[in-house]
Amino acid sequence: MGVLDRHASLDAMEGFAASLFERLRRDSFDGVGITRESYAPGETMAHKLIAHTARQEGLQVGEDAAKNLIIALPGREPEKPFIACGSHLDSVPQGGNFDGAAGVVAGLTVVVDLKRTGLVPPRTVKVFAFRAEESAWFGKSWLGSNAMFGRLSDADLSLPRATNGQTLRDAMRTTGVDLDAICGGKRLLDPAQLAAFLEIHIEQGPVMVARDLPVAVVTGIYANIRHMRIVCHGRSEHGGGVPRGMRRDAAFAVAHLIVRLDAAWQEFERGGDNVVVTCGMIGTNPDDHAISRIPGEASFSVEIRAERDDTLERFYGPFEAECRAVAAERDVRFEVDRRIVNMAAPMDGRWVKHLNGICTRLNLAHELLPSGGGHDAALFVHAGVPTAMLFIRNEHGSHNPREAMRMDDFMAATKVLHEALCNPLLGVA
Amino acid sequence: MGVLDRHASLDAMEGFAASLFERLRRDSFDGVGITRESYAPGETMAHKLIAHTARQEGLQVGEDAAKNLIIALPGREPEKPFIACGSHLDSVPQGGNFDGAAGVVAGLTVVVDLKRTGLVPPRTVKVFAFRAEESAWFGKSWLGSNAMFGRLSDADLSLPRATNGQTLRDAMRTTGVDLDAICGGKRLLDPAQLAAFLEIHIEQGPVMVARDLPVAVVTGIYANIRHMRIVCHGRSEHGGGVPRGMRRDAAFAVAHLIVRLDAAWQEFERGGDNVVVTCGMIGTNPDDHAISRIPGEASFSVEIRAERDDTLERFYGPFEAECRAVAAERDVRFEVDRRIVNMAAPMDGRWVKHLNGICTRLNLAHELLPSGGGHDAALFVHAGVPTAMLFIRNEHGSHNPREAMRMDDFMAATKVLHEALCNPLLGVA
Repeated sequence: MGVLDRHASLDAMEGFAASLFERLRRDSFDGVGITRESYAPGETMAHKLIAHTARQEGLQVGEDAAKNLIIALPGREPEKPFIACGSHLDSVPQGGNFDGAAGVVAGLTVVVDLKRTGLVPPRTVKVFAFRAEESAWFGKSWLGSNAMFGRLSDADLSLPRATNGQTLRDAMRTTGVDLDAICGGKRLLDPAQLAAFLEIHIEQGPVMVARDLPVAVVTGIYANIRHMRIVCHGRSEHGGGVPRGMRRDAAFAVAHLIVRLDAAWQEFERGGDNVVVTCGMIGTNPDDHAISRIPGEASFSVEIRAERDDTLERFYGPFEAECRAVAAERDVRFEVDRRIVNMAAPMDGRWVKHLNGICTRLNLAHELLPSGGGHDAALFVHAGVPTAMLFIRNEHGSHNPREAMRMDDFMAATKVLHEALCNPLLGVA
Repeated sequence: MGVLDRHASLDAMEGFAASLFERLRRDSFDGVGITRESYAPGETMAHKLIAHTARQEGLQVGEDAAKNLIIALPGREPEKPFIACGSHLDSVPQGGNFDGAAGVVAGLTVVVDLKRTGLVPPRTVKVFAFRAEESAWFGKSWLGSNAMFGRLSDADLSLPRATNGQTLRDAMRTTGVDLDAICGGKRLLDPAQLAAFLEIHIEQGPVMVARDLPVAVVTGIYANIRHMRIVCHGRSEHGGGVPRGMRRDAAFAVAHLIVRLDAAWQEFERGGDNVVVTCGMIGTNPDDHAISRIPGEASFSVEIRAERDDTLERFYGPFEAECRAVAAERDVRFEVDRRIVNMAAPMDGRWVKHLNGICTRLNLAHELLPSGGGHDAALFVHAGVPTAMLFIRNEHGSHNPREAMRMDDFMAATKVLHEALCNPLLGVA
């Protein structure tokens, strides 16, 4: 079959993909947005739906010890390294339907199309649906793919769920994870078995809408440093009785720290460094705060992302210095939790070029873009697997209910993936 | 009996008062501090304890339609205007044991002593224990004394409880308040019946400890403006994907606003104006915030207090201007709730002098101090009742579990009250 024939059959798969998205949405709508909680029933629902669909199509369906879903379509040389694609199925609370799911549904759509048309790809194709990609739940990202590469520590397993304090260990056990198999640095997958890993994901920023690009080839993933919860300790007192100079106001201290972080960020930006800073969760302590009480405690999360590892480290210094300065000036104390670091993950240059070439041949407007958001693909980069990513245009950003991917953009990306799986770049590992 | 005899018998009452404080503490300890929730079982427990104790001593015990407690000891001229004293029995969440309760226990201790010793005061003495003084629960202060003077509006009755959204109306009904009797501006008490109102309260700031004063005579109560909850609306997006200039970060906007409020405050202070600003409750929305999501919503409370009404109004202007400026600069919107205003309440000048004289005669180190915190006494000032207040020294401020009043300071204040009730300033109304 030629490229056009293959795409004629793939075009007919739009309804298949759309109905999967619709089922996912229906079963995870929380009244405001989409909630598919990691290592919890919401995520498991999505895994079951995808597994069930794949089985009905006659594909091989399995799970690894961390309960990542693996769907396989044997290739012409099944003994040789396979090509994997996929993404995750969990979401942030009150998020959107496509962040993660788009990559899994794209992979499934392509292998179902190959299976139905009887087209056997050169290499075995596996579609991965990872568990627990979103850090919203346990403060650390990519838990499923980390487990795949034996990178979950005991400290990770003890991370508490933000909503109810349940540890990751308990959440995994309840979900059926084989804890013995994933601890102690044991890998569930040998990176040498992979010829490549390709992840399709919606863009999480506004750039592709602004530039009118249905797809974009990712050049690399930003590094990030995270603190899930930094607690500022001041002194709780009656708001009316204490003059300005005697206060140890934790909320004012956190406000001053954030404004200084913002100033440092502006300075880096002026210097041409790509950094973003997010304090996604801030708050006084709901158990004891009151309108007329000086808050004795205020906590916040902080996430700093940068294109390069060294930029990130250069930014972290001023952050620590400002914490010390505000603490000294306002007589408060910052209790800083574990620093979670994710290194930058540059994509494989040859695959970037290859995907770029496919986009050009398919007449798709496209550009090269960095990824501010982290992705499971970073784990494959760090494991030495040739890795590439493709972004799909998406309106209103991700991690919110207004996230909006158009199906024609999704199908364009699926065609790129189809081409990449039928004509993979081999022997670059 | 002379002054010294009277005080010999009053000295013996220290154990009576201490055991009441101990009972109150035991029955309202929440594991961290003291919680006696307004128009809820915690507060009612305290009312029952005080009422029961007064009844056992043969005092007259009643309640008004708003469930304020009233304990009476008839004087030599029971037909003439009576003298009232007292304070409130509720607390903030995780607060201290003495804020409010000290004034009620002081009043009860004096009338019990008078009753036991058979000393009949010139005028009937009534001890009031007000309901719901603390604004922590419904966002508005002095609900019981407001009801007493027919000053609760329909809007007030619809105020939601901060913890669970229960309206004041429902909370009152559940507590047994006669809602028909308190609505429509009906007064439960004719101010003309009162010769004076005297409130004893712990100091809520650090001044008396710093100056080594067991008691202080209050010159007046600060005015205040409050907003229970101002919501900043931005745009919720993935933290990695959106460059600095395109963000509509609600948390950053609130941080910038607070820092500007702080700057305005500093400027007023430099100009010699007494103002305090407290943002007691701030937070992103726990239902949808996440470490890597730009917060689309952040809320905060604000309370501005000033010694003079005109200072307060002069400060509110810049506050509104900064809200507008931050909204414009950061493309966010501030949704500002109802503005709650409490006017300044100057104490009765002749009573201030009278209490000052009593302190001098009793050889108590004392000074005149303004009150940064609001008190039920303000309602009596505004109703035209000659009103005075006495502060008791208190360490670590109030509205927190570390609040610490010494019993010898408490007894010193009780002696001042005893003198004031036995030798009241009359005919000043």
